[in-house]
Amino acid sequence: MPITESDDLSPTLALAFELLRRPSVTPDDEGCQALLIERLERLGFHVEQLPFGDVKNFWAVRGHHGPVLAFAGHTDVVPSGPHTNWEFPPFTPCIDDQGMLCGRGAADMKGSLAAMVTAVERFLSDYPDHDGRIAFLITSDEEGPAVDGTRAVVEHLRERHERLDYCIVGEPSSTDVLGDVIKNGRRGSLGGILHLKGVQGHVAYPHLARNPIHQALPALDALVNEHWDEGNDFFPATSFQVSNIRAGTGATNVIPGEVEVVFNFRFSTEVTHLQLRERTQAILDGFGLEYHIDWTLNGEPFLTAEGALVEASLAGVEEVLGRRPQLSTSGGTSDGRFIATLGAQVVELGPLNATIHKVNERVLASDLDELSQVYEAVLRHLFVSPAGSRS
Amino acid sequence: MPITESDDLSPTLALAFELLRRPSVTPDDEGCQALLIERLERLGFHVEQLPFGDVKNFWAVRGHHGPVLAFAGHTDVVPSGPHTNWEFPPFTPCIDDQGMLCGRGAADMKGSLAAMVTAVERFLSDYPDHDGRIAFLITSDEEGPAVDGTRAVVEHLRERHERLDYCIVGEPSSTDVLGDVIKNGRRGSLGGILHLKGVQGHVAYPHLARNPIHQALPALDALVNEHWDEGNDFFPATSFQVSNIRAGTGATNVIPGEVEVVFNFRFSTEVTHLQLRERTQAILDGFGLEYHIDWTLNGEPFLTAEGALVEASLAGVEEVLGRRPQLSTSGGTSDGRFIATLGAQVVELGPLNATIHKVNERVLASDLDELSQVYEAVLRHLFVSPAGSRS
Repeated sequence: MPITESDDLSPTLALAFELLRRPSVTPDDEGCQALLIERLERLGFHVEQLPFGDVKNFWAVRGHHGPVLAFAGHTDVVPSGPHTNWEFPPFTPCIDDQGMLCGRGAADMKGSLAAMVTAVERFLSDYPDHDGRIAFLITSDEEGPAVDGTRAVVEHLRERHERLDYCIVGEPSSTDVLGDVIKNGRRGSLGGILHLKGVQGHVAYPHLARNPIHQALPALDALVNEHWDEGNDFFPATSFQVSNIRAGTGATNVIPGEVEVVFNFRFSTEVTHLQLRERTQAILDGFGLEYHIDWTLNGEPFLTAEGALVEASLAGVEEVLGRRPQLSTSGGTSDGRFIATLGAQVVELGPLNATIHKVNERVLASDLDELSQVYEAVLRHLFVSPAGSRS
Repeated sequence: MPITESDDLSPTLALAFELLRRPSVTPDDEGCQALLIERLERLGFHVEQLPFGDVKNFWAVRGHHGPVLAFAGHTDVVPSGPHTNWEFPPFTPCIDDQGMLCGRGAADMKGSLAAMVTAVERFLSDYPDHDGRIAFLITSDEEGPAVDGTRAVVEHLRERHERLDYCIVGEPSSTDVLGDVIKNGRRGSLGGILHLKGVQGHVAYPHLARNPIHQALPALDALVNEHWDEGNDFFPATSFQVSNIRAGTGATNVIPGEVEVVFNFRFSTEVTHLQLRERTQAILDGFGLEYHIDWTLNGEPFLTAEGALVEASLAGVEEVLGRRPQLSTSGGTSDGRFIATLGAQVVELGPLNATIHKVNERVLASDLDELSQVYEAVLRHLFVSPAGSRS
């Protein structure tokens, strides 16, 4: 029989149930943040609500001195799709017979939010006079445009010179077992739309036209074969991919006047987005093309190669779970890209990502209890000096 | 004052007026063929109506012995578009103050049809016992799909082993002045749609995908740069043009699973369409691609390099107009491609093509009278032996 009531659950799972009951599809928060704020204020956090546009965000901090560790996360979830495709209703949480907590957001990332809150509750109960400060940076728009969410909050914190030393993002970083992977950075993402102009004409009279598809071929091939960098110890080599190409009037006898090419760089910390733009244009200029490019910087790369946060995270996982996590910078972008611009050390540490954004999203319920212990252990490693002792 | 009545016009212009009054947009004939048939039967032609599908065609022949010269043409016209865009109503013929015959079809090719009929009328009046036979091959679907028109009639003639030695197609071949260009062939046209398969994936994980756009670039570039042939005295080198290319899901972060590339060869008589297909596939195979191509042979090339018809046409123009035409194989395809497969010598000889398929289609009225004299002179050069004399 699946468990559908939260009465006999651990505090972490009981809070996860409360969050999962709320259908907080981006950017709706549906009371999730109010629930978190109530728990944090009870612990003595100073909470500041920071809505931007139709996005709810809050920044909560407890303590007045020393380095700041922020837990970062989002209360919004991606849409469930038709409920009939789900084994259990997506917004009626339950723990199934295999011990899996089921529901939209179980893995991404209401489970992490619950684990963070209960970790802080236990830690403060044990170490009310710990070193440093604990903060929460919570948004309801990580899955959407991500403009009025963490990015806006970070700009607000930057303007008032808020200190941020360490940040644990609760994104589901684990691949096969809990804690096997900690993300300590992400590649940058730079997008471009190339508009290449030719001269339209009839295929029977190519000497009167200039076929922009023909012109694009060697130039794009040069971009594909360019060796942008070697990568480094933490990042694979920068990659260039064309995602879309479109040209032609539909008629088979007309040479088109323009080609549109959509491309994307995933780039390491060995190059900057400005260097990539300049090098792309230099290559295209070498082919004597008539073009312009609309650029979009989706995210700068960030990297926390080493330092107290990485050490504490590795130690915390090893202490609780008995395994040594692998550090990785693979995968897409996350809100860590915005937080890192404040100069903070940033890691992503959360549950398994196997079911995120899919139907029947689920995560092992016991993993969330263990994740909460990991977060608590990280807090101890950072904020309890070896000489410190339980109160 | 524009002339709008046909009473005082030459026989050629009067017949052109009658044809232009009929709004015979493909495949509608609107009585044009009945008009021609009536005139030809009066001259002793045996007329055979050959409708295929909704397309009207006829084959008319006069005489029983000797080589056959066919005049070929079409009674259908392209649509006029909104009549308000025209200076004069498109289906109310008139001769304007500059002496231009105005109306849809004036140049392409009701003017030529009228000139052919009156040329034959005068010729038969002068030489009722000429050598050879005269024929007409008329369709109402040259501007449309061109499947049930000349192509079908030609297949019918082939099946019953009908003789066809010479063919004058009335397409508007002249460029700057009447008779400056005679087309004595056309390039072939071979179309292909290349479907190139890759493996779809996320741009952040290119090693798990195979980008078919990237694979297509060097292969298409090789096709663009391939030297297919040198052409010859009559044809420019064979050309390859990509007219359409399309790939991508629309999303900027997805590597697509397939590319579709539409291309076209215009080819000389130095290569066959089968050779082009084989060489294209060999080039693509050299890049190890997973693909298939849907091929469409739009037309084989044809050429009437020399012979009695070319000589008679050149002599006829020179005699009537005092200028030596240029022989050319440039431009798109025409129904000549079908007729040439019967082994006939084929030329295209008609009025100026400056306004065809455009609003305010027009042709110098006096050009049609002169064109009729040219057709008559060609008949004389072919079918009246030097010893022959007027009856």
